[in-house]
Amino acid sequence: MAERCVLVGQSGGPTAAINASLAGVIAAGILEGARVEGMRYGIQGFLDGRSVRLDEAFVSRVDLELLRNTSASWLGSCRFKLPAPGTDDTIYQRLFERFERLGASAVLYIGGNDSMDTISKLAAYGQSTGSDIRFIGVPKTIDNDLVGTDHTPGYGSAARFVATSMAGLALDADVYDLKSVTFVEIMGRDAGWLAASSALARPDLVLLPEVPLVEDVLMERLAQLLEQKNTVMVGVSEGVRTPDGTLYCELAAPGAGVDEFGHLATLSGTGRYLASVTKERLGCKTRAVELSTLQRCASQVVSRTDLDEAYMIGGTSARAALDGESVKMCALQRIADDPYEVRTKLIDVLSVANQVRHVPAEWISEDGMGVTEDFLRYVRPLVGNMPEQLPPLP
Amino acid sequence: MAERCVLVGQSGGPTAAINASLAGVIAAGILEGARVEGMRYGIQGFLDGRSVRLDEAFVSRVDLELLRNTSASWLGSCRFKLPAPGTDDTIYQRLFERFERLGASAVLYIGGNDSMDTISKLAAYGQSTGSDIRFIGVPKTIDNDLVGTDHTPGYGSAARFVATSMAGLALDADVYDLKSVTFVEIMGRDAGWLAASSALARPDLVLLPEVPLVEDVLMERLAQLLEQKNTVMVGVSEGVRTPDGTLYCELAAPGAGVDEFGHLATLSGTGRYLASVTKERLGCKTRAVELSTLQRCASQVVSRTDLDEAYMIGGTSARAALDGESVKMCALQRIADDPYEVRTKLIDVLSVANQVRHVPAEWISEDGMGVTEDFLRYVRPLVGNMPEQLPPLP
Repeated sequence: MAERCVLVGQSGGPTAAINASLAGVIAAGILEGARVEGMRYGIQGFLDGRSVRLDEAFVSRVDLELLRNTSASWLGSCRFKLPAPGTDDTIYQRLFERFERLGASAVLYIGGNDSMDTISKLAAYGQSTGSDIRFIGVPKTIDNDLVGTDHTPGYGSAARFVATSMAGLALDADVYDLKSVTFVEIMGRDAGWLAASSALARPDLVLLPEVPLVEDVLMERLAQLLEQKNTVMVGVSEGVRTPDGTLYCELAAPGAGVDEFGHLATLSGTGRYLASVTKERLGCKTRAVELSTLQRCASQVVSRTDLDEAYMIGGTSARAALDGESVKMCALQRIADDPYEVRTKLIDVLSVANQVRHVPAEWISEDGMGVTEDFLRYVRPLVGNMPEQLPPLP
Repeated sequence: MAERCVLVGQSGGPTAAINASLAGVIAAGILEGARVEGMRYGIQGFLDGRSVRLDEAFVSRVDLELLRNTSASWLGSCRFKLPAPGTDDTIYQRLFERFERLGASAVLYIGGNDSMDTISKLAAYGQSTGSDIRFIGVPKTIDNDLVGTDHTPGYGSAARFVATSMAGLALDADVYDLKSVTFVEIMGRDAGWLAASSALARPDLVLLPEVPLVEDVLMERLAQLLEQKNTVMVGVSEGVRTPDGTLYCELAAPGAGVDEFGHLATLSGTGRYLASVTKERLGCKTRAVELSTLQRCASQVVSRTDLDEAYMIGGTSARAALDGESVKMCALQRIADDPYEVRTKLIDVLSVANQVRHVPAEWISEDGMGVTEDFLRYVRPLVGNMPEQLPPLP
């Protein structure tokens, strides 16, 4: 039997958990006696001939444990969209030549939506040419917007940063004896999962991209809240839109460009925009805090559950690929909320690519500006215990 | 002997450690058999008659422990400057009437520079009227800019957030195979202590308010660095100025207002400004990250040493006041770096008020864009161990 080789790459934005998945792939590969090769800077770097031998580099368990706890993409990443198969096959030919030269029996790609698209296209091209290389997608995204899986590695840690930050900011905002509204701007282009996780810290409102936001309705609600209390906290997704579909951040910074995936290049400014409207219309103190890229890279605030699951998914994916599975993504299936229990399962990667999973309507509160207890039951085990703090003085 | 009573207030911006000092005051007061009263919203709320009995509220040790671990100012805070004594005594008369009515034998005020000014003025007025009430300042500021003390409670925790965030952001910035410069904007109006703490994560440059920054010199240095490496990280204080004394953030947002202490109301924008200049002049990708108010309220990332010392200082201050000490501030004296050892000592509060302690010139590197190993030896025990991460691939 020929030597088996797993080739693994990381793609898209980094997270606190993506290296835990890489560690899982390497550990499983070593256990299975396979060679493990890593793409430097994803498909793009690999196209330029850049790869690195991993099973030999990680003979030490200490290094594997360190890799597990290191945030961001240790192999390097890229944002690179493969052309539609059939339009320009040169890139595919070059990639498959390199796969063959390296002796890859399986290609694993750790990433989000765009990466599942990459895996689907590679698998389709491979099938069309009769290649026996297997292709498996390993999910990773702080956005938690992949279909077919209970949640995605990376989400729990980012959600932990968001929820604990919201708790600290709420205490901070409440120290002066005056009326104020604080907008905490949270990542999430199309799906509001991460903004929704701020609800663990019980802010007054949570604004999601899933629900069009009418400025007048928001102002009315804020005015009501300010009659009842000093300090109003709002968790707001960067992807919140007006009823006609305009992003609020576009109102803040008109004319921003789009990236090669057709996404708006920068989404920040929603919180700043809403804070300035609120100050003008309600006359109270306002503050906008952008949680920024810290949400995905704050390795000092991780969810242990998230890292454990990311590692498990990496291992399952590598073993599945070596067992002959292909055109799959390794998903998580929840068995129970409390005590929390989860299993891995393989699903068709074609059913995942280019889909977006939104926060379901039944988990959004009736007024569209909050989440339900069911959502909190869903998210709590992914984030872990919130730090206990003394209740405020009446 | 008449019942003894400690009155305690919190002032200025909140920190992760200010409630630990409050817990220390309450614990010592209870142990000494004194009544402990708290001002709501500092001197300003107290002037309106707002106080709360604390020794009875904290008979439970569990609640005291929770208070110790709760960020921000649990009693509420204010930013309120007392008039110069002799100009308008009405406020002083009202305050001392309230002190007497409450039976306060000592007034403790937890805060930064402006709070030490408040304590000094109250003590001076008290002496001029023959009052026997004692006044003690309890230091607290993330800025670490009080003279007479090795460091201030609140600094270690904020520095831990800054340094660990810088470490995460550096990994995050390095994932793509392209040239980039990231500016991480860090709090610090006049003193660069907090920005300097980012050096624990070994960024390429650290820019402090202590050193005037010449734009051309910075661009030249960045260009050199970009020749050697892909990813350049810069920790920049929000208080960095041009050689003619203009704040860079004023260049970013001209015409911002000043607060009642004469400080510029908002200092943000330095990172954004430098990022846009760098992009324009060097043509590389740039990013600006504001660490924002998270620096002072991220109770999920605290330094245990900081909380312990804040608690100790609160206790020492309360006991000193009950023992008859007055017009003092409780400072920290370092005995040794490694193993780290520190003691409390009482110093004259008049020597502290309205002074600013800068990062000393001998702790700034020769080119003015970094700090020395001596500074790192100073700051390391205050911050605690940095999370270990796997070194990057070559």
